[in-house]
Amino acid sequence: MKLKNFVESQQLDLDTMFYLFKKADEFRSDKFSRNNLNGKILATLFYEPSTRTRLSFESAMLKLGGSILSTENAKEFSSAIKGETIEDTIRVLEKYADCIVLRHYEEGIAKKAAKVSSIPLINAGDGKGQHPTQALLDLYTIYRELGKVESIKIAMVGDLASGRTVRSLCYLLGKFKNNEIIFISPEHLKIKEDIKNYLSKHNISFKEEINLDKILPEVDIVYMTRLQKERITLSEYEKAKGKYVINKNNFFLLKKSARIMHPLPKIDEIQLDLETESEDARVAYFRQAENGLYIRMALLDYLINNK
Amino acid sequence: MKLKNFVESQQLDLDTMFYLFKKADEFRSDKFSRNNLNGKILATLFYEPSTRTRLSFESAMLKLGGSILSTENAKEFSSAIKGETIEDTIRVLEKYADCIVLRHYEEGIAKKAAKVSSIPLINAGDGKGQHPTQALLDLYTIYRELGKVESIKIAMVGDLASGRTVRSLCYLLGKFKNNEIIFISPEHLKIKEDIKNYLSKHNISFKEEINLDKILPEVDIVYMTRLQKERITLSEYEKAKGKYVINKNNFFLLKKSARIMHPLPKIDEIQLDLETESEDARVAYFRQAENGLYIRMALLDYLINNK
Amino acid sequence: MKLKNFVESQQLDLDTMFYLFKKADEFRSDKFSRNNLNGKILATLFYEPSTRTRLSFESAMLKLGGSILSTENAKEFSSAIKGETIEDTIRVLEKYADCIVLRHYEEGIAKKAAKVSSIPLINAGDGKGQHPTQALLDLYTIYRELGKVESIKIAMVGDLASGRTVRSLCYLLGKFKNNEIIFISPEHLKIKEDIKNYLSKHNISFKEEINLDKILPEVDIVYMTRLQKERITLSEYEKAKGKYVINKNNFFLLKKSARIMHPLPKIDEIQLDLETESEDARVAYFRQAENGLYIRMALLDYLINNK
Repeated sequence: MKLKNFVESQQLDLDTMFYLFKKADEFRSDKFSRNNLNGKILATLFYEPSTRTRLSFESAMLKLGGSILSTENAKEFSSAIKGETIEDTIRVLEKYADCIVLRHYEEGIAKKAAKVSSIPLINAGDGKGQHPTQALLDLYTIYRELGKVESIKIAMVGDLASGRTVRSLCYLLGKFKNNEIIFISPEHLKIKEDIKNYLSKHNISFKEEINLDKILPEVDIVYMTRLQKERITLSEYEKAKGKYVINKNNFFLLKKSARIMHPLPKIDEIQLDLETESEDARVAYFRQAENGLYIRMALLDYLINNK
Repeated sequence: MKLKNFVESQQLDLDTMFYLFKKADEFRSDKFSRNNLNGKILATLFYEPSTRTRLSFESAMLKLGGSILSTENAKEFSSAIKGETIEDTIRVLEKYADCIVLRHYEEGIAKKAAKVSSIPLINAGDGKGQHPTQALLDLYTIYRELGKVESIKIAMVGDLASGRTVRSLCYLLGKFKNNEIIFISPEHLKIKEDIKNYLSKHNISFKEEINLDKILPEVDIVYMTRLQKERITLSEYEKAKGKYVINKNNFFLLKKSARIMHPLPKIDEIQLDLETESEDARVAYFRQAENGLYIRMALLDYLINNK
Repeated sequence: MKLKNFVESQQLDLDTMFYLFKKADEFRSDKFSRNNLNGKILATLFYEPSTRTRLSFESAMLKLGGSILSTENAKEFSSAIKGETIEDTIRVLEKYADCIVLRHYEEGIAKKAAKVSSIPLINAGDGKGQHPTQALLDLYTIYRELGKVESIKIAMVGDLASGRTVRSLCYLLGKFKNNEIIFISPEHLKIKEDIKNYLSKHNISFKEEINLDKILPEVDIVYMTRLQKERITLSEYEKAKGKYVINKNNFFLLKKSARIMHPLPKIDEIQLDLETESEDARVAYFRQAENGLYIRMALLDYLINNK
């Protein structure tokens, strides 16, 4: 199977996934990265701000020798305010670039866009939908940190109802054997039924828990997420705020070999001092962000050079 | 005559125009495009959002090997809010770049800017003034689609009072023989006297019509435009909305050899299904957008390499 | 001493300063500039708009063969609105780029950011704090215009309380002998005590004056600044508006060898006609802006290639 775009994490088969992991490792070692995408153009079309994701893709493109057409806030500026359909926007933009990275505030838009696009299109987050390159870099991080992607016990913590990184990661974890997921969230922000059904169908063991500290000693990965103020109501936010935190009081409950991951930005759900963050190997989230760069290089190279 | 900037479509003589058409064809065939503008910098200075136009210029520059300084929303951000004159802005920016593409909300600003600029400056739309590269790509599209730019019968449809693409295109059509223009617009958004005077002076036949369907069977080109909400009053908008539409009911009134053009974005003034838009040769507006890329490559190469 | 970042003008010793001046002269002559930063990436992280400063850095980087990750308005868009610390932002961004240029609305942020950054970081203005590359280009301009940076008599005019360019320049002037500074400002916008203390400590002669015209005939440099509406109250602004102006009435009080400098943008504090601005050598502010380009090329080359 050869992918023409990357809209949902379900699209990836295992061969492609491990090919991308290997390629990302190569790009990290810097021997293969120069000029692979020389003369190619990446368009980042962001209808919703996400400096981090945008710069990660743009840096990946530049490091491969390509160049960038950038739109930091397409929602306010672009023809969208004049009422143009996403299909029309894509049918124009596809003439100007060799690949499109799309972020949109509305679920399902990436799929619509990919359908008409004659060039590869990557979903960089569509509302409460998916954010599949985040899931891919998360899995790549697990792979690098633990040396495996199966028989993992992972706690997912925070707003699991609107957190699309958690949703996408569940889809990927479902492809491997013996993984066990523990969902830890406030009562009103629990993981949705569609994910539970998917996991059941794939024989992935999961449970829901209330108490974070009780779970910490037994997991390989704690995947923390922030409360997404911009996606939940104020009362939902107030009820959940401060409920699940990693700080110096519970950090040492973690096994030495365990890892804390976080898609970043983090706010107050992780409260560790600078020294711990720099020196304790259990803090994996800055390495995770860096992994995003290499896996996106691998993905861009794969989609653009093989189309 | 050698142009130093491109502010109004009237500046172009026929030799230069056909030179640019030929060059655009070459850049399309991709044999001549690499590295013509290597090491050169294009600054896009947009005081008014237009993602489409900006990305078209930026893509053209990148495809010629050049690089980009980009300002997506200069009105809000830049020193303009501090009260700086356009002349001062240009006299600083001209040190940083080899060419400036300027879009501004105020008519006449591009001319002022070009006057002080020591590097080539291209008007990418100034308020209700002109948008001469749009006119140029429109004429280039007519040339490619019909094989000629004279003895054309063309209907221009929509808000002709504030639509600057229509104005600029009229100026160019006036340079050729036997063209005939039919203006179709709501009573309150008719083409202005200055254009009519210009056409009369150049012996271009034109008339004003109310009924679109009556005209469709006899024209070579239907040039549709959208109602520009941002430039007319709400009541002007409401009165005109939905008045002139191409849809499956009247599309087939067009001759087989006729073409529908549109500067895009389009909203609801064209309502054709995806299949018709992809397969019927009469739908020319996506090719038209692509032509914009090649004609802008030609223009940038011409202005920067020959200055 | 080898600088790893550039946050405050005090960091520069004389050797480094003159090395940068020499390098800037080389880059101006265009023989040495190509490809020095080939394959390197500069990230411009602007939490406050400053098109001029941003484009100056970006142009410098492009002219050295490098490429750009650009953020024009990080305050509104970026993860900052979600509550992320600057330290976290830097620890992610440092993976994507080879150098960061930071502008922020809050004094002291650049220092915090530089502390955690593993790549060179340049302060491009932090609130009422410093703007050290502006000071550096100002001193470089004095050096080029007068052939020396000592025994200079300089008037600094305008809002001296919040004007950070004036503050940073004072620090640099304090490193040389026999300079004499005359501060001319409205009563309520006078230079602050910390600067006076610094100058006293370094034996730099200074005084405060009310009358601009009285001073003009005796100075080598008039350093004009605008009232920064965005940093003072409306009543402070109204009281100061129009108080200190250079126009055709007092311009000719200046010595032939004297120079007017201005960090730009200027509003109404300089009212000279286009001809005078183009032809009278005493108008130095557009050359000053151009100098910014070369000195930033020198600084980027120094920080990135030697780290």
